[in-house]
Amino acid sequence: MPTWQELVADKRARQADETPKDWLIVPPPTDRLNVVDFPRECGLLSPKEIEITETSDVDVLLRNLASGVLSSVEVTTAFYKRAIIAHQTVNPLTEIFVKRALARAKWCDDQLKASGRPIGPLHGLPISLKDQICINGLETSMGYVGWLGKPAEKDAILTEILHNAGAVPFVRTNVPQTLMWGETYNHVFGRTLNPYNRKLTSGGSSGGEGALIAMKGSPLGVGSDIGGSIRIPAAFCGIYGLRPSYNRIPYYGTLTSLEGQDSMPSVLGPMSDNLNGIKVFMKTVIDQKPWTKDPSAVHKPWIEEEYQLCEHGGGKKLVFGIMWNDGIIVPHPPIIRALELTKKALLIAGHEVVDWVPHRHAEITRVVAEVFAACADEDSSEALKLTGEPLVHNMADVEFVSSDLPNDSISAFQLWQIHKRKLALRKSYLDHWQATKAITSTGRPIDAIIAPVACGASMPHGENLQALLTLRGRVVAHVSPSYTQYTGVFNLLDYPSCVFPVTRVDPAIDVKKRAHRFLNKRDERCYRLYDPELWRDAPVSLQLVGQSYEDEAVVAMTGIVDAALKAQKSTFSLDIPKARSSL
Amino acid sequence: MPTWQELVADKRARQADETPKDWLIVPPPTDRLNVVDFPRECGLLSPKEIEITETSDVDVLLRNLASGVLSSVEVTTAFYKRAIIAHQTVNPLTEIFVKRALARAKWCDDQLKASGRPIGPLHGLPISLKDQICINGLETSMGYVGWLGKPAEKDAILTEILHNAGAVPFVRTNVPQTLMWGETYNHVFGRTLNPYNRKLTSGGSSGGEGALIAMKGSPLGVGSDIGGSIRIPAAFCGIYGLRPSYNRIPYYGTLTSLEGQDSMPSVLGPMSDNLNGIKVFMKTVIDQKPWTKDPSAVHKPWIEEEYQLCEHGGGKKLVFGIMWNDGIIVPHPPIIRALELTKKALLIAGHEVVDWVPHRHAEITRVVAEVFAACADEDSSEALKLTGEPLVHNMADVEFVSSDLPNDSISAFQLWQIHKRKLALRKSYLDHWQATKAITSTGRPIDAIIAPVACGASMPHGENLQALLTLRGRVVAHVSPSYTQYTGVFNLLDYPSCVFPVTRVDPAIDVKKRAHRFLNKRDERCYRLYDPELWRDAPVSLQLVGQSYEDEAVVAMTGIVDAALKAQKSTFSLDIPKARSSL
Repeated sequence: MPTWQELVADKRARQADETPKDWLIVPPPTDRLNVVDFPRECGLLSPKEIEITETSDVDVLLRNLASGVLSSVEVTTAFYKRAIIAHQTVNPLTEIFVKRALARAKWCDDQLKASGRPIGPLHGLPISLKDQICINGLETSMGYVGWLGKPAEKDAILTEILHNAGAVPFVRTNVPQTLMWGETYNHVFGRTLNPYNRKLTSGGSSGGEGALIAMKGSPLGVGSDIGGSIRIPAAFCGIYGLRPSYNRIPYYGTLTSLEGQDSMPSVLGPMSDNLNGIKVFMKTVIDQKPWTKDPSAVHKPWIEEEYQLCEHGGGKKLVFGIMWNDGIIVPHPPIIRALELTKKALLIAGHEVVDWVPHRHAEITRVVAEVFAACADEDSSEALKLTGEPLVHNMADVEFVSSDLPNDSISAFQLWQIHKRKLALRKSYLDHWQATKAITSTGRPIDAIIAPVACGASMPHGENLQALLTLRGRVVAHVSPSYTQYTGVFNLLDYPSCVFPVTRVDPAIDVKKRAHRFLNKRDERCYRLYDPELWRDAPVSLQLVGQSYEDEAVVAMTGIVDAALKAQKSTFSLDIPKARSSL
Repeated sequence: MPTWQELVADKRARQADETPKDWLIVPPPTDRLNVVDFPRECGLLSPKEIEITETSDVDVLLRNLASGVLSSVEVTTAFYKRAIIAHQTVNPLTEIFVKRALARAKWCDDQLKASGRPIGPLHGLPISLKDQICINGLETSMGYVGWLGKPAEKDAILTEILHNAGAVPFVRTNVPQTLMWGETYNHVFGRTLNPYNRKLTSGGSSGGEGALIAMKGSPLGVGSDIGGSIRIPAAFCGIYGLRPSYNRIPYYGTLTSLEGQDSMPSVLGPMSDNLNGIKVFMKTVIDQKPWTKDPSAVHKPWIEEEYQLCEHGGGKKLVFGIMWNDGIIVPHPPIIRALELTKKALLIAGHEVVDWVPHRHAEITRVVAEVFAACADEDSSEALKLTGEPLVHNMADVEFVSSDLPNDSISAFQLWQIHKRKLALRKSYLDHWQATKAITSTGRPIDAIIAPVACGASMPHGENLQALLTLRGRVVAHVSPSYTQYTGVFNLLDYPSCVFPVTRVDPAIDVKKRAHRFLNKRDERCYRLYDPELWRDAPVSLQLVGQSYEDEAVVAMTGIVDAALKAQKSTFSLDIPKARSSL
C-alpha cells in the first residue's frame, strides 16, 4: 500500500503530464504579488487569444460561437492556455484534460458546421467546474487523497445538462480539504492564491474558480455554497458569483461533504467575471427542467416576469437596505467605502436606500455552526482514514481556543430541535424584512439587502476557521474574523445572494481608522488585522441579497446596482490605475 | 392536579356546552351502519338548508355568497347544523364555536353590504380545519390531554390567509393520538366512524375531516398528510383530497407531531366533496403569496399554464400508468374493480393507459418507517408525560410482533445516511418514470400514475398500524395490511397526489376471489380480512399521482379522470342505488 504522500506525488506527476509542455512559462517572481495581468504579459498568448479571453461579456462569446465567427476549438484553446498560465501563477486547477476538452470542442464545431445550428445556448463555451462536480471518467478527489484513483462512472446531472446545452467542460478547480473552509488548501493540490495579491487567500471553498476566473482563465465556472463558498472567493477575487436558492440548480451526482445533511443544503451556482455569465447559466440550466433528472431539483421554471422584476415595481424605483455591519464584526475600511460608493451610486440612479438593521445574526450564526457540528468529525474521518492522511488543522499558524459547542455527534431528535430554532429564526427574519414596508416610499418591503460578503476584502492565508469546528473530535472555535459569518446567515435563511465587485483596496484611501469600541474579541482581532499595505489591490465586493427563490430578481437587481456603479465609474475612481496594480 | 381522565371529562362537558341545545337530535340506531344521508332525514334541517349543504359545487356556493344571493350567516348556519348532526352520528368534531363563527359570518355579510365587494375568493364560505391548525383563542389539543387548556395566541399562517380570503373557519376536526395512524381515535374526543358504514374507520389522521365532509357537514376542509393522512380518509369517506407538494401550502403556526423533522415533512392540503373545492383552495392560498408569511413556503406562484397542462400536451391525449398493486399487498376486489372502471373510462375518453410497474416500493416504505422511527418515542412522550395519559397501543384487539427496526433514537449522522438512501431511491423512481417515454405514443413520459390509496376501501376499526412503530420504547410492527403503504411512498418521493371517488362496495359484485399466491404475511392477512358484506357501501377511491411540484397539473388531470368517469356513470353504474345504501 502506498503512503498518502506517495499518492499525492503520483497525482501531481500525472497532473504535470497532462499539461502541454509548450504551455509552460517562466512564472512571475514570487515577490510579485499582483499577477492578475501576468497571462497577458507572459508571451504565451497570441493577440487573438488575449482578445478572446478578455472579452468580458459571455453573451458576446456565445454569439460569436453560435454564429461560427469563433470556433469552439480556438476559444477553448485560448482559455485553456490562459488557465494553464494561471495555474503556474496561483495554482487554481485540479483536473487537467486538454485533449478530451479539445475533442469535445471540435465535436461542437463539427455539429455546427453539419447542422447549421448551435447545440444549445452554451454552444462551444468552455466552462470550469469545481472539483466536486463529476465528469465521467475523471477523478473527483475533492482534495482528499483517499478519493484519488476512482474515476467517475457518470456525469453529474449538472455536467449532463451543460453538455446538452453545448458547453465544453475543460478544467476542474481547487477546493480546501473537507470543503468547510473559507480558503483553499489541501494535501493533494496545495494552496490557491489570490491573483490580485498573492499574500492573500483566493477565498474558499470555491477558491480555484475564483482565482481562475479573475485571471480570465475561464469565462464561466461553477462553484458550490453551503456557508459562503461561492460568494467568498467571488468577492475576494473580484468577480460575480451567485448563491442560488436551495435546489434550484441540480446537485445530484456531485460529491460533497456532510452528504445527507438536508438542514441547510449546499447549492451549486455560477461564477463569472460578468453578470451575463451568471444569467445565461441560470436560465440555461433551469430551462432544461433539471427536475426531470434530479429528484431534489425544484420544479420552478425560470420566470421571465420575475426577472423583469414584476414583484419589484418593474425595477423602476427600488429600495435597498444597506447593512453596514452585522452587529458582530465591523468590516474593514475598504468594505465600508464600497458600501458608501454603492449607496451614492444608487441614490444618483434614483433608487432609495435605507439602513438595514441586522436581525439576530448571532443566533443564526450559532445555528449554522450547530448544523455543521451535528456529525462532529464522522463525515471527514471516513475519507481521511482511507489513507491515513491527516486532517488539516489550520491553514497557517493560528490560535485556537476551546468553545462551548457540542463535543460529540448529536441525536436525530436533537437535530430536530435545531430545526425548530432554525424555523423560528427564519420566520423572525422574514417578518423583520416584511415590516420594512413601513419605512419605504414604495409600499413594498425593501427589495434587497446590500451587505458585506466578509469583514475584509480577502484575508491573509491562515486567518480562517474550519467550519466543521472539529479537530480530532475536539470542538474548537478559532478567534478569527470568521469568513463565513456574513454569508452563512443567508444560507440558513435560504436567501439567494449575488456578489458584485465594487472597487479595489487603495492603501492611500483605505487607511486604518482609529479603534472603535470593540463589539467582542473577534471584532477586535478583525480590526487589528487590517493593514492597508498588506491588502493592496485586493478586490472589494458586496453581495445583494433577495428573499427565498427570488433568484431571477436577485440577478436582475444586481444588474441594476452594477449599472449604477458603472455609470459613476469615473467619478468614484472604482478602478485602481493599472500602473499601481502591479509591483 | 386533575387526572387525565378528569381533564377529558371537563373537555367533553365544555364541548357539549358549546353545542346549541336545539341542534340535538335523536341519533340513528347504532345498528344502522350507513348514516351518510341521515342529516337529510333527521328533521333538523330546513329544505333550504338541505339545498345549501347539498350544493355539490363549491364554486356555486362561492358565486352565490359573493353576489349576496346567499348570506354567509345562512350558509354557515346550514353547514354548522349539519356538522352537529354528523357529530352526533359519527363523531368528527373537536372544537365547536358556533357564536364566534356566526359573528364572523355576519361580519362578512356586513362587509359585502357596505362595500359591495366580497372580501376575497372564499367570501363567506365556512371551512373546517383539522385539529392542528391554530385559531387564535381556541385550544388545539391535537388529541393530547396534555395540550388541553392552552388557547392559541395566534392564528396559524394558513388560518390568517383563509381569513384574508374571506373564509369562515367554523369547526375543528378529529385526529388520532400522535397523528401517526391511518384511523382516528384519541382519549380526548374518542373515535370517528365512517359515515357510509360505521363498522369501518373513517381513516386518518384527517379522519374527522373525511367523515364530516362526506356527511356534507362542511363544503371544504383542510387536513394534513405525512404518510397518507389526507388521502386515506378522503378515500375511505368517498371525497376528494389533495396531498400537495412539500411547502406549497404554509404550515407555519400549525401544531404537529415530529416537529422539526424535515426528512419528509407533513403538508397541509384541501379536502372537499368536489374538485372545484380543491382547486379554489390551492389557487386562493398560493395567490396570497404564502412565502411572504411562512419562511418554508416555496416561492412558486400558482402557474395557470401548468393547470392548463402545458407540459402535458394541453391534456388532449394523456397517458396514464395504472398501478394494479405495489408488489407487496394485492388490493381487495373493489379496488381492482375501480382501477378497471377508470381504465375503461379513460380509454373511451381517448386517453392512453399503460400498466405502471411499481419500483422499489418495499425499499421506499422501509425508509419511510425509518424516518418515522428516528426519534423513537421522544416526540410523543413529551406530550403524554404532561398528564400521564397512556400511549394508545392499538385501536382494537390487534396482534403485534417484534420487528428488526431500530430500537432507539438514532444519531444525526445515521439520519443523514437515511437521507442518502432516500435521495438514491427518489432518483431511481424519477428515472423509472422518465423511462416510460419509450412506451407512450406521445413522446412524453406517462403523465400520471393512477393507483390504489390503500389495499382496501376502508378497514374495520383497529386493523391498523401506529406509524411511529414504537410502543413504550419497544419498536414493533403490526401484521396488518398497513394503510399507509400505498400513500407513504409518494410522501417520500414528494409526488402530489389527488384522491377521487370511483364507486362503492357492492357485495353482490365485489365478491371474494379465490386466494392468490400470497406475496407475504401481510398480503395474506389483507386477503383474509376481506368480507364483502362487512364492507357494504364503503366508498372506493383511487389516487392520481404526478411528479414533484406538479400540483396544478395533478388537480387538472384529476378533473379529466373525474369527467371521464362521470361520462360513463350510467354505463358503469358507479353509484349504488339509494335503496340499497341504507340498512
